[in-house]
Amino acid sequence: MKVSVKVPATAANIGPGFDCLGMALPIYNTITIEETVLPGTGVEINVISEDEAVDELSIEHLALDENSLIYKAVELLYNSIGQTPSELKINIHSNIPIARGLGSSASVIVGGLIAANELLGRPADEAALLSIATEVEGHPDNITPAIVGGLVLSSQEEDCTVVYKKLNWPDEWTITVCIPEYELSTDISRSVLPKEVPMCDAVFNAKRMAMFVEAINTKDTELMKLALQDKLHQPYRMKLVPGLEKIMQNLKHEENVLGCVLSGAGPSILVISHKNNLDKIHSIVKDTWNDLNVKAVIKTLTVEQNGAHVVNQED
Amino acid sequence: MKVSVKVPATAANIGPGFDCLGMALPIYNTITIEETVLPGTGVEINVISEDEAVDELSIEHLALDENSLIYKAVELLYNSIGQTPSELKINIHSNIPIARGLGSSASVIVGGLIAANELLGRPADEAALLSIATEVEGHPDNITPAIVGGLVLSSQEEDCTVVYKKLNWPDEWTITVCIPEYELSTDISRSVLPKEVPMCDAVFNAKRMAMFVEAINTKDTELMKLALQDKLHQPYRMKLVPGLEKIMQNLKHEENVLGCVLSGAGPSILVISHKNNLDKIHSIVKDTWNDLNVKAVIKTLTVEQNGAHVVNQED
Repeated sequence: MKVSVKVPATAANIGPGFDCLGMALPIYNTITIEETVLPGTGVEINVISEDEAVDELSIEHLALDENSLIYKAVELLYNSIGQTPSELKINIHSNIPIARGLGSSASVIVGGLIAANELLGRPADEAALLSIATEVEGHPDNITPAIVGGLVLSSQEEDCTVVYKKLNWPDEWTITVCIPEYELSTDISRSVLPKEVPMCDAVFNAKRMAMFVEAINTKDTELMKLALQDKLHQPYRMKLVPGLEKIMQNLKHEENVLGCVLSGAGPSILVISHKNNLDKIHSIVKDTWNDLNVKAVIKTLTVEQNGAHVVNQED
Repeated sequence: MKVSVKVPATAANIGPGFDCLGMALPIYNTITIEETVLPGTGVEINVISEDEAVDELSIEHLALDENSLIYKAVELLYNSIGQTPSELKINIHSNIPIARGLGSSASVIVGGLIAANELLGRPADEAALLSIATEVEGHPDNITPAIVGGLVLSSQEEDCTVVYKKLNWPDEWTITVCIPEYELSTDISRSVLPKEVPMCDAVFNAKRMAMFVEAINTKDTELMKLALQDKLHQPYRMKLVPGLEKIMQNLKHEENVLGCVLSGAGPSILVISHKNNLDKIHSIVKDTWNDLNVKAVIKTLTVEQNGAHVVNQED
């Protein structure tokens, strides 16, 4: 049996939503799991990328062995029904840029898990998939939109269940995803964050999360501009993302821009804006990075409303 | 000339909304300012309370001299148009319990300010009133609902302007205000708060603020139960409010209860619930405090949608 699952990229930590707000984006990885016929062949994981920019080092991030995140996720699922994975061939068709803050690790965890769940006759429901995937990834903000699609507020509660609520992204607003050529490991980007933060910064982000939801619900442009600010993660990561501060400054006075935020742990940047004058946004970002000799791919996208789903199944 | 302004009580810091979420409640102070005819009489401030529980000590909180908060507010307004207040008689008809976390200080600041603004021919607009009152009070979470009514998210921005957004409290949910006989000064209650908090607690409250707004908008009972939790101020204030922890525990398994939170800096407690079985809630709170020999007034109220307004004006 062979199952292929298509999983969207995800942008997490949007604005004030560190570790809880994420959205699915229309860039995809496809994860295929095949039960191999020869016993004793173990689990084989291959990464195939059509993107020339994906080099050997990047592929190593996806870890081509049984210690990889995808293997851990698949193993946890098998274990949950008292089995152990063996004789599996896992192929990762990678189109989501790696180590760029676009949820490539969440996508392989989710894809592997859902494909394995199909192979096993769906022992896990959505709640179980969310819970296993979050356990492997560490937090639910990329995992949840990768599984359910859309813009999602999610929280892992004390009993380890993942609670989520989909929010409606207004059609009037668009997301320009700016992906620099350099990589930034999530581990490094997480290591610069402090364990404690000033109370006033905690209050700053808390009220901005409320503003974010209200702005989304009422399509309030001015409120969204206030909402898309953060003091919990971006200030600490600024130095790890050359160009971010300058791009924020250069976009500040563009009337159609609502905000400019880090995607996940970076280094990709999201520019939230109205749909007009997108060329201007593209060129400001491109020029700013050009001055720092950073090449970048810049795409204006809509929120992907569909989460991971099976695209091919063969008996 | 003589102007009387009626100002609602306010409950701030609701659930996850430390320093930013507040609501007006239908308990009122009336502040009257009269220009006296005799020059050189200065500014006289009197407090009149029909509540026998308001003792001399409580009245001192309102500070019967020109250093009081109400005088500061009135003075700032006069100064803003190049004048100094003199020959004013200020009467505070006090019905809002003092030092109970119900915004009595915000109410006199707001009442004094709006009455003085009328006397002066309205030099200050709403934004200016919000800004002056917040300067005197220190934060906008009681001030804003006292001025504009309703349930309000508010934030003082870096340029000192106060931004606010009214939220719609669902008709299906009600607020039981539980006011113990003992007082708790806001200064003491604020002094126990740390200057820094764990990052995970900051994230905890940020996502709960988003849940709060979404729960309010979609009338989602289960989400509201999750939303009404806090790690930024209540855990630190627990020891200053005898009975709070026990009341929270005793209400935890009541199906109609959505949450139990501190009102402002305490010691009053708000129980958010459906409209059924209110007697049970009243008796659980009353009995728990009775066991600690604490008398209390318990009232089930709706959100007051009207903010401070002139109720009488004589030339």
